[in-house]
Amino acid sequence: MPVNLPALQPDHMHPVAGVRLGVTEAGIRKANRRDLTVFALDSGARVAGVFTKNRFCAAPVQVCKAHLAAGDIRALVINTGVANAGTGEEGMVHARATCVAVAKALDIAPEQVLPFSTGVILEHLPIDRLTAGVPGAVADLRGDGWFDAAHAIMTTDTAPKGVSRRIELEGKDVTITGISKGAGMIKPNMATMLGFMATDANISQALLDKLVVEAADLSFNSITVDGDTSTNDSFILMATGKAGNSVVEDEHGAAWAALREAVIGVAIELAQAIVRDGEGATKFMTLAVKGGRSREECRAVAYAIGQSPLVKTAFFASDPNLGRILAAIGYAGIDDLDVSRLKVWLGDVLVAERGGRAASYREEDGARIMAEAEITVTVDLARGEAEATVWTCDFSYDYVKINADYRS
Amino acid sequence: MPVNLPALQPDHMHPVAGVRLGVTEAGIRKANRRDLTVFALDSGARVAGVFTKNRFCAAPVQVCKAHLAAGDIRALVINTGVANAGTGEEGMVHARATCVAVAKALDIAPEQVLPFSTGVILEHLPIDRLTAGVPGAVADLRGDGWFDAAHAIMTTDTAPKGVSRRIELEGKDVTITGISKGAGMIKPNMATMLGFMATDANISQALLDKLVVEAADLSFNSITVDGDTSTNDSFILMATGKAGNSVVEDEHGAAWAALREAVIGVAIELAQAIVRDGEGATKFMTLAVKGGRSREECRAVAYAIGQSPLVKTAFFASDPNLGRILAAIGYAGIDDLDVSRLKVWLGDVLVAERGGRAASYREEDGARIMAEAEITVTVDLARGEAEATVWTCDFSYDYVKINADYRS
Repeated sequence: MPVNLPALQPDHMHPVAGVRLGVTEAGIRKANRRDLTVFALDSGARVAGVFTKNRFCAAPVQVCKAHLAAGDIRALVINTGVANAGTGEEGMVHARATCVAVAKALDIAPEQVLPFSTGVILEHLPIDRLTAGVPGAVADLRGDGWFDAAHAIMTTDTAPKGVSRRIELEGKDVTITGISKGAGMIKPNMATMLGFMATDANISQALLDKLVVEAADLSFNSITVDGDTSTNDSFILMATGKAGNSVVEDEHGAAWAALREAVIGVAIELAQAIVRDGEGATKFMTLAVKGGRSREECRAVAYAIGQSPLVKTAFFASDPNLGRILAAIGYAGIDDLDVSRLKVWLGDVLVAERGGRAASYREEDGARIMAEAEITVTVDLARGEAEATVWTCDFSYDYVKINADYRS
Repeated sequence: MPVNLPALQPDHMHPVAGVRLGVTEAGIRKANRRDLTVFALDSGARVAGVFTKNRFCAAPVQVCKAHLAAGDIRALVINTGVANAGTGEEGMVHARATCVAVAKALDIAPEQVLPFSTGVILEHLPIDRLTAGVPGAVADLRGDGWFDAAHAIMTTDTAPKGVSRRIELEGKDVTITGISKGAGMIKPNMATMLGFMATDANISQALLDKLVVEAADLSFNSITVDGDTSTNDSFILMATGKAGNSVVEDEHGAAWAALREAVIGVAIELAQAIVRDGEGATKFMTLAVKGGRSREECRAVAYAIGQSPLVKTAFFASDPNLGRILAAIGYAGIDDLDVSRLKVWLGDVLVAERGGRAASYREEDGARIMAEAEITVTVDLARGEAEATVWTCDFSYDYVKINADYRS
């Protein structure tokens, strides 16, 4: 059960003018489940993306990067079941063949298609079943396909993840809708596997490129489930321009500020949804680090806490084992950190100062906070003005069970 | 049950001339268990040590460093139950009071005592019970006390860890004996919590200082259980000079080479014993990375594999999930790694090459290797001559159980 993730409802997902989605059961790895999704974009849409930094990046990621560089993207195709990663030359052939099949069905060029795969690594795509499924997905294309697509991109996810918002831009209604998937192998390093967002706002390619990086940094690149960076992480932001606003191209304008805030807000909610549905998760933790000299060192401290198996198992046990948090801060890599100055709060309870437990701290206060399903740990490094927030979940028996059983 | 760790026998542990050990039940945290150990060194012994790099380093570690810098160490005192870490000024007072008690019982100066603590972080030492226990431990001092000391320094360890070797140096018998402890919060960064080794060899302080760093690097600094660096990691090497060999002080001499090899060999065995007894461990893994441009990048790859919860749970399940290993190599931080050139072996089976699964690989070969309790993963990065080896264990239900229950 995801932690405080409301069940997705079809009417939560506002269509985005210029974007249609279709899904089908292609039988990629298992029968009787939707495993193939196609996005079709009207002509003139702008697309930007960020991808995994894993050197074993999957074949579809490599094809995506090449096609995105050429521009004029008109379709996305996503399969689950097999990640097409660690598949060598044959993997590249399969990724390109996937694009050819979608291009044929939509009467566009293969270079106008972005392919995505998620699932088991090192297995080859059953390319014949995949391409045979494409016409079915294309026949299913519709503007209100977001809800079904959120389901069709799931792998070990226990719940679909979708967020949709509407804002007003120059008197025009603008919609931002997105879906994401992921539950394990989650410490995205550029973006998570997988996030797709679209807006009907009209925005310049330059600002769209900037926005996708900023949004990824503050959302998908600020979460961790198990510290493993996937081979297939991809985050795509599409802008169809159908809303009728004049093109957003001024970094100092109000329209950019409003659109930026809304897009980042949706991205953060989608990223948090992945953590809430993290493999075996029973707790959702916000790790807020402030008072650092740089955002980077704040992130290092937050990730040290958020990736420590000892901290994560203590949270699973609702045990306010503060020593494990302090130890993680201590090994986060800040060589000149003065531990006598920093402060740590569990929820609203000051738990550590002056290099040790706070004099005012009482175990029952810590226990009260730890009993909750959502817990914020705040660290003040007291050495600067920078800050960073990372979201993570706890580490339970079920994490081990899920990952010892997966594939079998 | 530790993985292939033979039960320690009293007669395995050769006494080291000039070193006596005594233990007692001081009731530090639990009744009816030996929890206080004293080492007494004859006058003239040389001592060197390396300590945790965790910024929250424990009070005793800080006192150790200061006393070691002053030289002429005559005693060590180790308590389990409470780590005296994250304890602020009071922790420093307690660490010094511990030295005073031992100094008084042995008629030496407090600055000649090195204090060590291991156990729960953030709790204060019950200093009265500890100092009250010192005379009992001192009364128990004897040359054959190593076996009992190996037991008395345990915390969540399920088995005592001790290694002893004898070599010949210039026709003289030289003994090297050591003990270690640790099972969780294990990714030592200088040394593990805790390792104590002594030899009766005569060796210069300069070479002893060099040897302790080299031995730590190749042993305790080459293991990981859960990636958490402890606040109390300490590794101490003592040389009493009682063997009668002429002082080892020539870095190019045969005596240095022989002594170095033996000391490092004992240190590696002690470090491996910690992994074999890693919390919840059911498998012992050797991660051998070669063909790197530097030892550092080989270590980064080995640690990425060895710390991946996904890899560790797959090993627990005896699942040859090669994709998780490749993904870990891919995110190890080598930006210009050419994944099409590297090779990976599981045991003696080539499993990956040319960016994907080896053509010759058969799942049953992988399954055969994974069924074993000791598994070697070999990675050839094919870009240089450097190499590094890291030892680790798998990640099981029991790891979560142990760490969700500890303290309660």
